[in-house]
Amino acid sequence: MMIASDEFSFINWLRQQPLADSRVILGPGDDTAILRNPKRDLLLTTDLLMDGVDFHLHQADPQAIGHKAMAANLSDIAAMAGEPLAALVALALPTSAATSARIIAEKLMLGIRELADRFAVSIVGGDTNSWNQGLAICITILGQVSPRGAVRRSGACPGNWIFVTGPVGGSIRGRHLKPTPRIREALRLQELGPLTAMIDISDGLAADLAHILEESRCGAVLHADQIPIHPDAYALATETGKTPLYHALNDGEDFELIFTTTPEVGKRFCEMEISPGLTLYKIGECVASGYWLEHPTGRTPIIPQGWVHPLNKPSDSESTVA
Amino acid sequence: MMIASDEFSFINWLRQQPLADSRVILGPGDDTAILRNPKRDLLLTTDLLMDGVDFHLHQADPQAIGHKAMAANLSDIAAMAGEPLAALVALALPTSAATSARIIAEKLMLGIRELADRFAVSIVGGDTNSWNQGLAICITILGQVSPRGAVRRSGACPGNWIFVTGPVGGSIRGRHLKPTPRIREALRLQELGPLTAMIDISDGLAADLAHILEESRCGAVLHADQIPIHPDAYALATETGKTPLYHALNDGEDFELIFTTTPEVGKRFCEMEISPGLTLYKIGECVASGYWLEHPTGRTPIIPQGWVHPLNKPSDSESTVA
Repeated sequence: MMIASDEFSFINWLRQQPLADSRVILGPGDDTAILRNPKRDLLLTTDLLMDGVDFHLHQADPQAIGHKAMAANLSDIAAMAGEPLAALVALALPTSAATSARIIAEKLMLGIRELADRFAVSIVGGDTNSWNQGLAICITILGQVSPRGAVRRSGACPGNWIFVTGPVGGSIRGRHLKPTPRIREALRLQELGPLTAMIDISDGLAADLAHILEESRCGAVLHADQIPIHPDAYALATETGKTPLYHALNDGEDFELIFTTTPEVGKRFCEMEISPGLTLYKIGECVASGYWLEHPTGRTPIIPQGWVHPLNKPSDSESTVA
Repeated sequence: MMIASDEFSFINWLRQQPLADSRVILGPGDDTAILRNPKRDLLLTTDLLMDGVDFHLHQADPQAIGHKAMAANLSDIAAMAGEPLAALVALALPTSAATSARIIAEKLMLGIRELADRFAVSIVGGDTNSWNQGLAICITILGQVSPRGAVRRSGACPGNWIFVTGPVGGSIRGRHLKPTPRIREALRLQELGPLTAMIDISDGLAADLAHILEESRCGAVLHADQIPIHPDAYALATETGKTPLYHALNDGEDFELIFTTTPEVGKRFCEMEISPGLTLYKIGECVASGYWLEHPTGRTPIIPQGWVHPLNKPSDSESTVA
């Protein structure tokens, strides 16, 4: 979920390894893998969340941590316009925390189950362990593609419109712990679309859209005055001295979806109600190359500032999402 | 993989939760979950291995650790007589280890890939992270059942013969890091069988067979002189003062298979070569109730001494496998 330049080179190394099985339609490098299957292809994704990196156990309710872990995974399924089917939950529980491992486990599972039930996901197994180090939660979700197929990162074309499913920025003020994955909205959008590319916002709008552009081999122009800025981004900006727009573009863990589609479909989307409570924001267009932010006064290049995982240098593992 | 009485009560709590999806044929509590699927049902399993519990990073080569993590997962697929298809690898890499996180990651992946390639498993995704705490590796495997279906823990009947696929005990002397999962042997046994119940040895022969007995609601008599004792169990016994038989019955992480089948099938197995290099050992029979070890001088009750994960009390997280 949290991606770094170092992690990218590791993922690239992984992607260069041959895939053993002709059932693998899509391997590492997208929101989920896709596996060939009778009737509907399968989606498979995993996320590992760790104390001090993705949450702070001494500050957050374990139930909220469980919610976040499940939501982050479901959001990857949403980003493929997939339907989640089943989940596995592996826990490394701390024996040295103020709360007993058993209590932590049950609260985590309450948060995980609540979201699983809401999206009809069965928790079919897991692995429960304890150790004298920090809490780690690894959730894996098996899903299936929508009847119209999966939406990858690689299908955007110059001329496509770029949308985001909600206001972004400042999630570190609390929203990052309680996202609602956009499962139903993504299925509905794909049903009404189709969409050409999609990703969920975990690293930040600018960084995650850059993943689409890289996989689709195209560029984009975003319109500064069309980026939906969350109130949390304004509040955070008063503390950081950065602009609300900076936070909207660069903060991670909003778990909204960025997607692209043709202008024809995009126009239809702008004229209809897609899904109760969902407001779509058109934020720009794909172009042949480059990555630009258009202001009233001109264009500036976008250089994603999203959260990075430094694999090679010692880290204090503090969350630097914002 | 490592199971405790406390973990059992947690698993029981999990098992009492309703399953949301009619596609779930088997939820938590066996070696893998089973999901209904066109043509062949799917198997899904996850294992989380942690530094100081399942291995010691400062002692073991990360490549061996990667091998063990993959083998432990594949062994769960083997225990269902399943075919592995695809794997996800999630890593929490330590930033404070003597070796850089990147080097650890690549060595882990070499160990994981070597075994994946040997069993034609595609590594289709994962999640790579770093933190200032211990190495944790969570592997998830998607598989499919054999053409004759999965072998659960729950199908053993009084009168069934009990087999183990190899000598056991003393794996802590090194074998626990380099097991070969019994994927092919399990498929062959099920093809020639069928088998009535199966499990892999992670907690210890006595404890893992007890899981079969509990799920199958029957008992067993084991013959002390028929338990195949590994040379490592003899060597370990000279250090611990316990008997080699004690180690064979109670040591974990042998990753051999324990299975039950009818006497008719069992007799056939005893008269044929099942698979190159595989020797089967008949170690006892299922009975209506009780759990006994038969010596030349009489019967004593078996009380499994397998490895436990104390979820509620502080632990130094030292491996007590042996």
